[in-house]
Amino acid sequence: MNVTKGRQLYEGKAKKVFETDDPELYIVEYKDDATAFNGQKRGTIVGKGVINNKITNIMMTYLMEKDIPTHFVKELSDRETLVKKVEIIPLEVIVRNRATGSFVKRFGAPDGMEFETPVVEFSYKNDELGDPPINTSQALALKLATADEIKEIKKYALAINAAMRSFFLNIGVELVDFKLEFGRLPGGGIVLADEISPDTCRFWDVKTKEKLDKDRFRQNLGGVEDAYNEMLSRVVNKAL
Amino acid sequence: MNVTKGRQLYEGKAKKVFETDDPELYIVEYKDDATAFNGQKRGTIVGKGVINNKITNIMMTYLMEKDIPTHFVKELSDRETLVKKVEIIPLEVIVRNRATGSFVKRFGAPDGMEFETPVVEFSYKNDELGDPPINTSQALALKLATADEIKEIKKYALAINAAMRSFFLNIGVELVDFKLEFGRLPGGGIVLADEISPDTCRFWDVKTKEKLDKDRFRQNLGGVEDAYNEMLSRVVNKAL
Repeated sequence: MNVTKGRQLYEGKAKKVFETDDPELYIVEYKDDATAFNGQKRGTIVGKGVINNKITNIMMTYLMEKDIPTHFVKELSDRETLVKKVEIIPLEVIVRNRATGSFVKRFGAPDGMEFETPVVEFSYKNDELGDPPINTSQALALKLATADEIKEIKKYALAINAAMRSFFLNIGVELVDFKLEFGRLPGGGIVLADEISPDTCRFWDVKTKEKLDKDRFRQNLGGVEDAYNEMLSRVVNKAL
Repeated sequence: MNVTKGRQLYEGKAKKVFETDDPELYIVEYKDDATAFNGQKRGTIVGKGVINNKITNIMMTYLMEKDIPTHFVKELSDRETLVKKVEIIPLEVIVRNRATGSFVKRFGAPDGMEFETPVVEFSYKNDELGDPPINTSQALALKLATADEIKEIKKYALAINAAMRSFFLNIGVELVDFKLEFGRLPGGGIVLADEISPDTCRFWDVKTKEKLDKDRFRQNLGGVEDAYNEMLSRVVNKAL
């Protein structure tokens, strides 16, 4: 498959998206830029783009083997991946196995409290509004997705959580929570889009409880690059 | 039924609750105090307690005729009503037929936008946390209610909305949105508790679109007492 990189369509906080000469395919390019707290904290995590590209593609491949449809097509280079063109559904889907981060701040739950069943929540992807929490009935009223799409998204989110928990447990990592985005294919159907990485998941070492994710950057814990590299090396070794 | 008013158990923003000599019954007493924006705005709406007591009791009676279980037992005086003792479920249930108020602020929807199907949302009743919005899966994780209870609460909320919309339309009033609270009976079972009044509902005159509710107080529109009295007189005439 030979595609030519075209016009840049979008530059986000951690990625750029480019057109290609195939109208059904985009190229995603991962950057080292890091932001937190809705862009109030900014920095660079050296090598992050390469690491997140690699981890995402391994996870997408793993999930596709588990019958989860994704936008992934092919890794093109260290930082570039070919994906299917989708229309992103403006709902961030957050799955939580333990209370931490914004859940603790909002609801006063004890930090680290384990949930008996996973929590699934949505945020309305809208920078101006600060990505507010939104429920199913509100998302339907705003026509962000159809009832069938939301049902499918919830089903996939739980299936992805189950599959990823077992993948990461095998490499000594607990999957605490993560963010997903989904897209609509032009011909219809929902697929997992966006990335799966230490930027978008909370990973805790099973033995030491050490954080191996972007919380090291958010909370100025140091060792940010080391944590990202540690996650990459464990994921790559498992996938081999 | 003769009950004696006992110890005051609780004083809220708009009501006091008293024990009685019957362990299964409480007395609710309605005050004229008004607050808005989580207590940041305070004032008095003269006669509000009497009006809200009367409107609530008429609506509770109407809903019970429609097979909605409530805590209502008997009106004792202008401001006092006998109710069943319940354990309040710490979820505020908001039902919306149009976008206005916090929905507009949170989601940027056009003020007054009509929904094709009603929106049902929950807030976690917790003053310290500022009553944050919460979804079903989060409420379950925090064990605020069981899955069966939440299913029943949603079912009742929609049935109450349908019944109340038709009641108010008959007196030239559009029911824009409203807040409900539910309680658990000691022997099990969920009932509608709390009040139904211009404090907890948004009422718009069908013809003039004039607000006949607490938004007149919140937004300093004047004519607050007139609006509450107008609602009382329409509701009482309908009920006669």
